[in-house]
Amino acid sequence: MASPSLPVTLDDVIAAQDLLSGVVRPTPLEYSRALSERVGADVYLKCENLQRAGSFKIRGAYTRIARLSEEEKARGIVAASAGNHAQGVALAAQLLGIDSTVFMPIGAPIPKLLATRAYGAHVEQVGTTVDEALVAAKEMAASTGAILIHPFDHADIVAGQGTCGLEILDQCPDVKTIVTSAGGGGLLAGISTAVRALRPQARIVGVQAEGAAAYPASLAAGHPLALTTMTTMADGIAVGRPGDVPFALVSRYVDDVVTVTDEDRSAALLVLLERHKMVVEPAGGASVAALLTGKVDLKPPIVAILSGGNIDPMLLLRVIEHGLVSAGRFLRLAVRTGDQPGELARLLAEIAEQRANIVDVAHSRQNPRLSFGEVEVQLSVETRGPDHSAALIGALRSQGYPLTLLSGTP
Amino acid sequence: MASPSLPVTLDDVIAAQDLLSGVVRPTPLEYSRALSERVGADVYLKCENLQRAGSFKIRGAYTRIARLSEEEKARGIVAASAGNHAQGVALAAQLLGIDSTVFMPIGAPIPKLLATRAYGAHVEQVGTTVDEALVAAKEMAASTGAILIHPFDHADIVAGQGTCGLEILDQCPDVKTIVTSAGGGGLLAGISTAVRALRPQARIVGVQAEGAAAYPASLAAGHPLALTTMTTMADGIAVGRPGDVPFALVSRYVDDVVTVTDEDRSAALLVLLERHKMVVEPAGGASVAALLTGKVDLKPPIVAILSGGNIDPMLLLRVIEHGLVSAGRFLRLAVRTGDQPGELARLLAEIAEQRANIVDVAHSRQNPRLSFGEVEVQLSVETRGPDHSAALIGALRSQGYPLTLLSGTP
Repeated sequence: MASPSLPVTLDDVIAAQDLLSGVVRPTPLEYSRALSERVGADVYLKCENLQRAGSFKIRGAYTRIARLSEEEKARGIVAASAGNHAQGVALAAQLLGIDSTVFMPIGAPIPKLLATRAYGAHVEQVGTTVDEALVAAKEMAASTGAILIHPFDHADIVAGQGTCGLEILDQCPDVKTIVTSAGGGGLLAGISTAVRALRPQARIVGVQAEGAAAYPASLAAGHPLALTTMTTMADGIAVGRPGDVPFALVSRYVDDVVTVTDEDRSAALLVLLERHKMVVEPAGGASVAALLTGKVDLKPPIVAILSGGNIDPMLLLRVIEHGLVSAGRFLRLAVRTGDQPGELARLLAEIAEQRANIVDVAHSRQNPRLSFGEVEVQLSVETRGPDHSAALIGALRSQGYPLTLLSGTP
Repeated sequence: MASPSLPVTLDDVIAAQDLLSGVVRPTPLEYSRALSERVGADVYLKCENLQRAGSFKIRGAYTRIARLSEEEKARGIVAASAGNHAQGVALAAQLLGIDSTVFMPIGAPIPKLLATRAYGAHVEQVGTTVDEALVAAKEMAASTGAILIHPFDHADIVAGQGTCGLEILDQCPDVKTIVTSAGGGGLLAGISTAVRALRPQARIVGVQAEGAAAYPASLAAGHPLALTTMTTMADGIAVGRPGDVPFALVSRYVDDVVTVTDEDRSAALLVLLERHKMVVEPAGGASVAALLTGKVDLKPPIVAILSGGNIDPMLLLRVIEHGLVSAGRFLRLAVRTGDQPGELARLLAEIAEQRANIVDVAHSRQNPRLSFGEVEVQLSVETRGPDHSAALIGALRSQGYPLTLLSGTP
């Protein structure tokens, strides 16, 4: 089945596994009671969020960097990244005793910047996007001779990421479906190379962010196509064009590439936080989001890869709120009341009567939409779920309150 | 060494372990590279946040309920709790096929209420505090004959919680220090009973919330003393009076009970989230907070118990913010500027120049403190840490901006 023209083979992945032995952590595979009940089929989670440096990236980065010649190693390495690749490259370089420089965009999450620096990389902040940082990295490579470590478009990177697939087969030998997030496609290509060779019948599904999904159109066209725009909070998989190396493997081996929205991912992250007590980043929860939204045929046992856990706490705050809203558990309402003493107390008592928890309240007389003698009360309310939210809104309306839903589904 | 008058012995804990085999999950003990580096001694985390129903409570609840007589079981059980005990009791009753009723205060976190119901308990919401819920539970026990399951003050509960200690000795045979949170004292008493008998030299330290610490004064007095007031966000360990059964054991076996603040705990939770990708509740992170604040003698290897992971996402939002503030990574500022076009842009450019990330901005002309021709800009800003925060504030002041720090340490 394997074609001689393909850039990575099972043997390459096995060789990478030997190289990585004692370097990467064989991450746990955890049975998920909560997800299995929800989707009606056995689901396991491959916890690459617990990998060293917080994501699978160290697998590929170490494989690539370790294989540089002594002469190349002496020239040092350079990379561009807003996050996981930066940390993976910095840690790999540190372990191998090589100088590294990482260009990160201005505005990159501060914790990722500090972590990259803590692994000993020299960090330069330049531009506002990864693409601009990449230009600077290429310039440095050209002028100093440092070796550019691309995040996904290299055979050694793909072979390294593929070792995650070998671990899965070891931990769940009869796996029937593997679901993983995909950006440039390095992880998806590596896993599918290993798994297709050893379990020809297993289904392999990639998941991309709806606002940044270059693979579906590229697969349809038969060659990598660049996106013209990208919008997603899943910065880990916001890649505008599939890599040539991973594309060749993905188009040969992968059964399907599906997309999920930011809301789908927020809801999945919330399930992982609440039920599994586990932190994943938005890209890292894409696989679970695809399962929860019915985008994947459920042939069990299913392994969903949690590809990374490096989420900026500031983003985590927004994701939790998003997740509560999309689970129907959080409402923001604007309610108009009369401007008489006791009106606000009456409104809050009505909400308490409905057993919803008030999170915050703002009271304003200065909105131009208000008539004289009216005030607007903006409320954030936590509810038990969509039915409870609908009941609360119905109760307030039946009491005669004019009401606007600012966020949340009624 | 053991006195015949003590209510629980090592044999009782071993018997509970037999009873719980196949019921509770032997939770993982994870080496913490991040904490070990920070405190300079080997630290392991005992992950009871990954226990069934999200905390250690199932250990005691199941032990207690399983040992009821058939006649008692037929009468059903009743409990009062705002959280973990509710879920532990409900799950234990479900596993044993027994009717359960749990009284929860109005305003209890909705996710905990839903989880308790999902385990099959009949949930009644009454009063606004756990004490009020307990009154209702006792009334039901008196009128219907249902058996009241106290959260900590019973020998079977303490014996059940003690099984966590046996697991620790199994997983880390040479443990020198065990640190665990304490509320009523059931877990601390159970663990110390098991550990003191098998490792007489190991140090055992309890950690309470500063605003709700009944043990230190009670231990000094030699008998349980009730607190008159309590203030802490760590609802899981907000208990106003030590139980008689655990107190007898804790006063005999435990080396020290220390306290930590809400800020200490928020900072610890943030470390666990960011570095271990792990969710714990405020009470659950008290042990790590005690280590990070130097409250515990560091005789390694140290085992810190993460007692539970059931945190309401709404509370998690506040904890993350708190944690960022107390780590010096988040500032809220009010800055006065002139009310001319371009002034806001100039201020934001200055902050960007300092490489701090702006989280949100509010612009107001209506503050009575402002003179005519002034506006106030309220800013939330993420920084790299205390030094960066101080540098940012210094830079703004040197540009002549009058500035008030609303939260965060400069």
